Amino acid sequence: MDKRYDIAIVGTGPGGLSAALNAKIRNKSFILFGNNNLSSKVQKAPKINNYLGFSSVSGKELGESYGNHIKEMGIEITEERINNIYAMGEYFTLMVNEKAYEATTVILATGVEFSKPLVGEIKYLGRGVGYCATCDAPLYKGKIVTIISSNAEGEEEANYVSELASKVYYIPLYKGEYNLNEGILIVNDKPIEVLGESKVNKLILKNSEIETDGIFILKDAIPPSQLVPGLKEDDGHIKVDRLMATNLNGCFAAGDCVGKPYQYIKAAGEGNIAALSAVKYLNK
Amino acid sequence: MDKRYDIAIVGTGPGGLSAALNAKIRNKSFILFGNNNLSSKVQKAPKINNYLGFSSVSGKELGESYGNHIKEMGIEITEERINNIYAMGEYFTLMVNEKAYEATTVILATGVEFSKPLVGEIKYLGRGVGYCATCDAPLYKGKIVTIISSNAEGEEEANYVSELASKVYYIPLYKGEYNLNEGILIVNDKPIEVLGESKVNKLILKNSEIETDGIFILKDAIPPSQLVPGLKEDDGHIKVDRLMATNLNGCFAAGDCVGKPYQYIKAAGEGNIAALSAVKYLNK
Ligand SMILES: Cc1cc2nc3c(=O)[nH]c(=O)nc-3n(C[C@H](O)[C@H](O)[C@H](O)COP(=O)(O)OP(=O)(O)OC[C@H]3O[C@@H](n4cnc5c(N)ncnc54)[C@H](O)[C@@H]3O)c2cc1C
Ligand SMILES: Cc1cc2nc3c(=O)[nH]c(=O)nc-3n(C[C@H](O)[C@H](O)[C@H](O)COP(=O)(O)OP(=O)(O)OC[C@H]3O[C@@H](n4cnc5c(N)ncnc54)[C@H](O)[C@@H]3O)c2cc1C
Repeated sequence: MDKRYDIAIVGTGPGGLSAALNAKIRNKSFILFGNNNLSSKVQKAPKINNYLGFSSVSGKELGESYGNHIKEMGIEITEERINNIYAMGEYFTLMVNEKAYEATTVILATGVEFSKPLVGEIKYLGRGVGYCATCDAPLYKGKIVTIISSNAEGEEEANYVSELASKVYYIPLYKGEYNLNEGILIVNDKPIEVLGESKVNKLILKNSEIETDGIFILKDAIPPSQLVPGLKEDDGHIKVDRLMATNLNGCFAAGDCVGKPYQYIKAAGEGNIAALSAVKYLNK
Repeated sequence: MDKRYDIAIVGTGPGGLSAALNAKIRNKSFILFGNNNLSSKVQKAPKINNYLGFSSVSGKELGESYGNHIKEMGIEITEERINNIYAMGEYFTLMVNEKAYEATTVILATGVEFSKPLVGEIKYLGRGVGYCATCDAPLYKGKIVTIISSNAEGEEEANYVSELASKVYYIPLYKGEYNLNEGILIVNDKPIEVLGESKVNKLILKNSEIETDGIFILKDAIPPSQLVPGLKEDDGHIKVDRLMATNLNGCFAAGDCVGKPYQYIKAAGEGNIAALSAVKYLNK
């Protein structure tokens, strides 16, 4: 651990980027986690008419304007996926697998995950179902683990787990080249239901079943209360006040993750507020 | 009265314009009140760095992008100043001097007025001090009226009052050509204090005094609760929930008028939310 940042921003959609602009302007030290592609929800939009100032742009074009803006402000993106954030009292610890970052305040702008949970997913959460394979891997030494992943970042987690588990099944929900350790079994089938007794013992897929001791479901966004233990939710979204403060001192949030409507300029506006609230918190 | 609109939007800063975009996209009938210059707070900004997507633009440039956007969407601005808005139950009546407009929902995006009240202004409000000269003109038939105005729209009000009052003083707080009826006295001095007994009888200026029966103070923005009787405020701002709903059914608000921080993209984000909330209200 080399440095404690004033602000850690998680997410590079409009919410996180707007927060970063204001952290920069207010001269705070900060780190912005996400990816250089910014957000797939920005890139994939065919035509956007309601971002005031840009008439009828594609998501790609809007994303380019975002990218140029943060580049001209000298803002860099740290391409890491945060697994867990712990409120330590005076500061927060942000975990990326085994690495840890520290920041006095946190701004969550992680978006929302639209996929519905599998049948049985919530029932067995913590009893064989988890969202962070690397965090819980030690529990599965010599056991059978199944990893369902929405993105390529799951490959790294699968590789890590395969060093401990007796067997690893990998179920990619995306297309691509899979960069996996030898011995990991790729299953191209659609997961439907989690079964078990006191703990998970089976995963039912559309055309097959897998006997397994643990199932990790790696989604594009981790449910907020899972990401930050102790964080209050309201109907599946992070609960915030009008100044974007959550129930945890020093933790702010913005964008889709705090609630509907799901919209770019709403997310950007909230990112602006969240950053100024974090600055105010730091200054007192 | 020829038409009842689905939505009336008051204000053409980023809050009102963003609301208008979304009303248009959602195919609602709406009317947008403000002026073609959009907002002086947009036009006057020297350099803006925190409106995500535009790096380092002047207010003039950002205003041009706004103007192009709404023009390309076919949105027109009605150049009128709303004096009063009355909640009628199922709809709202918006008054422009003697003219009235009707709408099922209202979105307030009127910005904030930074000027401090004069000494005695609040004390004599309703007892000789008012904010809408044309509304109260009949009370001043044959009397002396003083009009203090922050903008050229006050000239029209002064002309109207001069047809009834015995004498009209006009105190412009701006520079320009004054388009005033004959007989109106222009006073170029700085108002300081309102004096009176049970009612107003004098205005003290920096270098002079005026004996007067009524004083109208025409600010760039009318205090919200003055504009909309019954509207709940919170510390001088319109009280709204996270979906930008006020305490009045069908009345929403966005931008500086609902609270700090005072920022463009915050106002635009809130305008977006307010419009979608109005649409939801209309659809049920
Ligand atoms: C196809 C499509 C079209 C759309 N069209 C419109 C439109 O026309 N107008 C409109 O206003 N809105 C539109 N939307 C909605 C809009 O995309 C979202 O409201 C907006 O992107 C939300 O921004 P955000 O910053 O909250 O989150 P997102 O844009 O979802 O960004 C979240 C970011 O956080 C990152 N992240 C999440 N968790 C972590 C973690 N643990 N560690 C590191 N990074 C993490 C993600 O990878 C992502 O980059 C559209 C959405 C889609 C999918
Ligand atoms: C010099 C300056 C520089 C700034 N720089 C920045 C910056 O760099 N970044 C940033 O984010 N913010 C900046 N701001 C703040 C920003 O200007 C405001 O937050 C923003 O304009 C608020 O938008 P709004 O839509 O709420 O209201 P406004 O932009 O104030 O617009 C309100 C509109 O409503 C109209 N209106 C009011 N009452 C009525 C009525 N009764 N009838 C009809 N129309 C009415 C007004 O005439 C006006 O057109 C700056 C402000 C100033 C003054």
